[in-house]
Amino acid sequence: MNSMENVSAARADFYSRLDAQDLFPLWEQLHNLVPATPSGACVPALWRYDELRPFLMEAGRLITAEEAIRRVLVLENPGIRGQAAITSSLYAGLQLILPGEIAPSHRHSQSALRFVVEGRGAYTAVDGERTTMEPGDFIITPSWTWHDHGNPVETEGGQPVVWLDGLDIPLIRLLDAGFAESYEKPEQPISRPEGTSMARYGTNMLPVRHQVKSPTSPIFSYPYARTREALETLLRGGPLDEWDGIKLRYVNPATGGWAMPTIGTFMQMLPRGFQGRTYRSSDATVYSVVEGLGHAEIAGKRFDFGPRDIFVVPSWAPVSLHANDDCVLFSYSDRPVQEALGILRESRETH
Amino acid sequence: MNSMENVSAARADFYSRLDAQDLFPLWEQLHNLVPATPSGACVPALWRYDELRPFLMEAGRLITAEEAIRRVLVLENPGIRGQAAITSSLYAGLQLILPGEIAPSHRHSQSALRFVVEGRGAYTAVDGERTTMEPGDFIITPSWTWHDHGNPVETEGGQPVVWLDGLDIPLIRLLDAGFAESYEKPEQPISRPEGTSMARYGTNMLPVRHQVKSPTSPIFSYPYARTREALETLLRGGPLDEWDGIKLRYVNPATGGWAMPTIGTFMQMLPRGFQGRTYRSSDATVYSVVEGLGHAEIAGKRFDFGPRDIFVVPSWAPVSLHANDDCVLFSYSDRPVQEALGILRESRETH
Amino acid sequence: MNSMENVSAARADFYSRLDAQDLFPLWEQLHNLVPATPSGACVPALWRYDELRPFLMEAGRLITAEEAIRRVLVLENPGIRGQAAITSSLYAGLQLILPGEIAPSHRHSQSALRFVVEGRGAYTAVDGERTTMEPGDFIITPSWTWHDHGNPVETEGGQPVVWLDGLDIPLIRLLDAGFAESYEKPEQPISRPEGTSMARYGTNMLPVRHQVKSPTSPIFSYPYARTREALETLLRGGPLDEWDGIKLRYVNPATGGWAMPTIGTFMQMLPRGFQGRTYRSSDATVYSVVEGLGHAEIAGKRFDFGPRDIFVVPSWAPVSLHANDDCVLFSYSDRPVQEALGILRESRETH
Amino acid sequence: MNSMENVSAARADFYSRLDAQDLFPLWEQLHNLVPATPSGACVPALWRYDELRPFLMEAGRLITAEEAIRRVLVLENPGIRGQAAITSSLYAGLQLILPGEIAPSHRHSQSALRFVVEGRGAYTAVDGERTTMEPGDFIITPSWTWHDHGNPVETEGGQPVVWLDGLDIPLIRLLDAGFAESYEKPEQPISRPEGTSMARYGTNMLPVRHQVKSPTSPIFSYPYARTREALETLLRGGPLDEWDGIKLRYVNPATGGWAMPTIGTFMQMLPRGFQGRTYRSSDATVYSVVEGLGHAEIAGKRFDFGPRDIFVVPSWAPVSLHANDDCVLFSYSDRPVQEALGILRESRETH
Repeated sequence: MNSMENVSAARADFYSRLDAQDLFPLWEQLHNLVPATPSGACVPALWRYDELRPFLMEAGRLITAEEAIRRVLVLENPGIRGQAAITSSLYAGLQLILPGEIAPSHRHSQSALRFVVEGRGAYTAVDGERTTMEPGDFIITPSWTWHDHGNPVETEGGQPVVWLDGLDIPLIRLLDAGFAESYEKPEQPISRPEGTSMARYGTNMLPVRHQVKSPTSPIFSYPYARTREALETLLRGGPLDEWDGIKLRYVNPATGGWAMPTIGTFMQMLPRGFQGRTYRSSDATVYSVVEGLGHAEIAGKRFDFGPRDIFVVPSWAPVSLHANDDCVLFSYSDRPVQEALGILRESRETH
Repeated sequence: MNSMENVSAARADFYSRLDAQDLFPLWEQLHNLVPATPSGACVPALWRYDELRPFLMEAGRLITAEEAIRRVLVLENPGIRGQAAITSSLYAGLQLILPGEIAPSHRHSQSALRFVVEGRGAYTAVDGERTTMEPGDFIITPSWTWHDHGNPVETEGGQPVVWLDGLDIPLIRLLDAGFAESYEKPEQPISRPEGTSMARYGTNMLPVRHQVKSPTSPIFSYPYARTREALETLLRGGPLDEWDGIKLRYVNPATGGWAMPTIGTFMQMLPRGFQGRTYRSSDATVYSVVEGLGHAEIAGKRFDFGPRDIFVVPSWAPVSLHANDDCVLFSYSDRPVQEALGILRESRETH
Repeated sequence: MNSMENVSAARADFYSRLDAQDLFPLWEQLHNLVPATPSGACVPALWRYDELRPFLMEAGRLITAEEAIRRVLVLENPGIRGQAAITSSLYAGLQLILPGEIAPSHRHSQSALRFVVEGRGAYTAVDGERTTMEPGDFIITPSWTWHDHGNPVETEGGQPVVWLDGLDIPLIRLLDAGFAESYEKPEQPISRPEGTSMARYGTNMLPVRHQVKSPTSPIFSYPYARTREALETLLRGGPLDEWDGIKLRYVNPATGGWAMPTIGTFMQMLPRGFQGRTYRSSDATVYSVVEGLGHAEIAGKRFDFGPRDIFVVPSWAPVSLHANDDCVLFSYSDRPVQEALGILRESRETH
Repeated sequence: MNSMENVSAARADFYSRLDAQDLFPLWEQLHNLVPATPSGACVPALWRYDELRPFLMEAGRLITAEEAIRRVLVLENPGIRGQAAITSSLYAGLQLILPGEIAPSHRHSQSALRFVVEGRGAYTAVDGERTTMEPGDFIITPSWTWHDHGNPVETEGGQPVVWLDGLDIPLIRLLDAGFAESYEKPEQPISRPEGTSMARYGTNMLPVRHQVKSPTSPIFSYPYARTREALETLLRGGPLDEWDGIKLRYVNPATGGWAMPTIGTFMQMLPRGFQGRTYRSSDATVYSVVEGLGHAEIAGKRFDFGPRDIFVVPSWAPVSLHANDDCVLFSYSDRPVQEALGILRESRETH
């Protein structure tokens, strides 16, 4: 037995004694724990809405919104199945609410976004106020606020309504800081007319005695109509960003910061024929297509997309966006967290 | 000569020798320099627009906008004439621009607000973008930005346009920090279509790579149409503040802070029959009436007001507002300065 | 077969078809994903330093600092073995550096704290400046700064030096945002005398042209001598907090915020005989005992502690602290993250 | 009479009618109100302490501290006599307190700094805590905090103690926001041991539950010993700034911002033989010499200075500093106000 083997045997013995003490030797894992570049197992993926929709409708027949509490199909990143995660830190699901249904009121530490994909006439109620949901609207149910959803039969002829849920479930799980409770009734009481929050906080004015107490935006609905109009105005006036086209982020009008503390949300417009340049970012990003046909090149692989499709770009994967038509893309990521912690990194390819 | 007189003579002699050294004895002035309550000489005052207007039109005949550079009648507080001040720290003037005229481009350290009082069809240009001016619009020309105004004959049939100018001239004078320069031509070049700033910054979204570099709002026009709609929505939904009715402050959407760093701006709505309770504030405030008839009770004196009238409430004067009709009031004060410096004080009468 | 079984079978079939699409039904997991209270698997645990020390010294014989890069025994929470985590979001390890050794220079996205447990004469070098390490000193190696450690033989007679490493490895892993690189030589060049950072940033003054560009404190060493003196002064002057005794948090003197963006660090003093009341917090916390004998009651279980012992309190576990002697405790948690995200929750027992 | 004269007469008539309405024509004053560069009447000036001191001692014989409330000789800028101002926005005075005297407790909106010039053994009490005053110490009595001063006979053998008072009196007067009141007794009660504030807030740590509620620093004394040690360390380690030597600003450790919201305070060290380059700044600055002989070149005029001398540099005047010995200079200006309002301007001469 040579000395190398001796060392090896000594270390092996040492390691097993360490293990019994809830210890382990860092040097055997250092490169895994402190990797040279992001090394998570997430992969690029795209879900076609026309393939997802039949499953949603089948879910609508198999379980009621009331029984499900939230009738959602969770989109799991194929690289990290079993964690309810579409990126390492974020969750995505498609929620269906049928005419006449109510998704009962509850609240939880997790912040949620609702991005309306299909159908009209449903509402989301947050802390005493309702907002009607239209395709393309971005709606927030902030951390620890009572919220419920409904789809009254009397409105809009009773369509199924589907939206994309984005939550910070994996992040709150990591922090082990999640609390939740159900409201005593299916629906919370309504105390303010629809539109109050927008009038109070959403017109570049604020109540004179308003004090910021929450990191989440006090407006909880950002209607698509206004967002789209702004994007079009900027597309006409130029200039285009060679990577992003025209890209805006949703903000908290009381602070100018992110609309949600844990999830950054964006809307961008790519003009017909746009061939975006390649970039990388340390925040993995989920895209929901609002309008147009195009494709994304992610880590060397092509993903064709059309309206209502959902795709995910992993952390640090090279990506470029390409538009056949005028395209509108909603997206979300954990960028506010990475910015707050000082670790966001981006790289934009230049020639 | 008794000892009292001796002291007195000794002191008088001492004081005159001090004076020659650019010194003086604080104890002779302490109560004036550090008063028990605000003791400025500003008084409450109201200017009736129907009395002001003929003077403005006469000015329009006596001098051109080009010769005047800014054809403005300055409103001086009757208690402190000769300082170009409507309150101790702020300036107010009424500016007239006739069809076909241009008020030539310049820039200065002073921040200015323009609140449109009468007429349509004029524009203000700021840093390469124009905004059309409508009655009730609140427009900012930020510190050290090129700005010019014009009233093209081809628009709206050629009306005289009048607005209220609010500037921080006395404050910048006290700080002795004012710079100014003229642009080489009457009009600055236009580099962006009208509406660009509003699309970029004014819809509860911001460009993804925007960085806050100025304390002033990046939107420089706040249209009355949206402001009024918000006030009405809140008036309908309640509750009313017993002192203010419904009162909003204009904000910088990139920070949630004040629209201007030196001047706070507000719009409020009082429902028909409103009898406001009495309050005091350490920020003297200038009001411009947009709609409605009513009166203000200021330091025990009644000031009846109607559309386009201007009145001023001195620091710490007790004031209450009363509305015969639905009234809309624009106002401005140095509140952002007092807040930043930690000296703002308010008192609201309660029974 | 009854209808219940039918439904069940239909659902089972549905679920398996979902699975093939990278989907799953939220309603089967809702209560796990959005738990009523923190439900992580972390458990309370204590490591006695006199039991750990022999393992450290054995490691010192089995591997050099240079080969190991960092000769560290990682303390793993017994409830979540295999994740290099002492709490769900944070890492802890004990690092040994022997006289004459160097732990070579590298940098990484992960932020690290070093809390000196035993020995004198070693140094940590950060971005061109060295700081000597004394027991009780709290030292930061900020995200993406070059750092190396050494224990020169000529200093202090050549003692082994041991410190507690606290890192945000699990958090950066969740965000999948970790980068790392090695310096080309074992030691980075030194460009400033020791004490420069403290003189520049640490005396309640800052360089006139300093601009905050990093969320991490510009002082990277907080000497125990000053910390202890402050605690004693406050202990003498009172009052005591019934839960915490005297407890201070380390701050970034350029912002007043946390010294590190991802890890909150604290030092507290409990007077002899202190019987702390019970509290809970959503930030799981790691304690390192500096002085004194005492015990912690965590989730109903007693943990006796003495100098240099390390213990961990899981999220939301009820805990109280008790001191036989005057005790000094260093601690760290992910509180800055939970505060920034608006999800921190605390509960203090009152009678 | 030609048409020019007609216009002139018409305007004169118009102006007199305007005057009766509390109006005036901006165009006649525009260049004065919006000057091209700072145009205040302040002039450079220097007061030699050996000339001032006999006046202070004479004041000590002519009036007691109790009768005077504050026995202060106010230094008035020779260019703007009669305004109790050493710069347009700030006040300076030299205060004397003799052994056995008390300057009775009061509070006011104005913020004050005390920079100790001569003598030991006096104290300043602020909000229940006393701090002993040593030459070179910078002490704050924040806006609206009770404060009194005393010079107990039993301490240090009973020396006269002199300090420089710096206040924002002209600024608060402009804002018309000043309140003041006297305490019911000469001395406020003492509730905390000396050193408590420094231990709580001044060691790069803060109480865990501390919340920032005031814009003023929670430490109210910055001892010269520590300040000087930091300056020396930086002077040894370099590099020197070619304009400033080594210059630090005092900070609020709870925010990293200015120690006082209205007055910026600085300490700088110039090495023997330093020949500073020329700069200009829009904040007029008051200097108090702590150590060394040297001179300032201000607007082309030379001012030789020695210990305890006071000199003032007007806004935008070119200035350079020159040291015969190692010099230490304390200074203050309204820089925090100009920064907050976005109007600070600096220019540094480069060759």
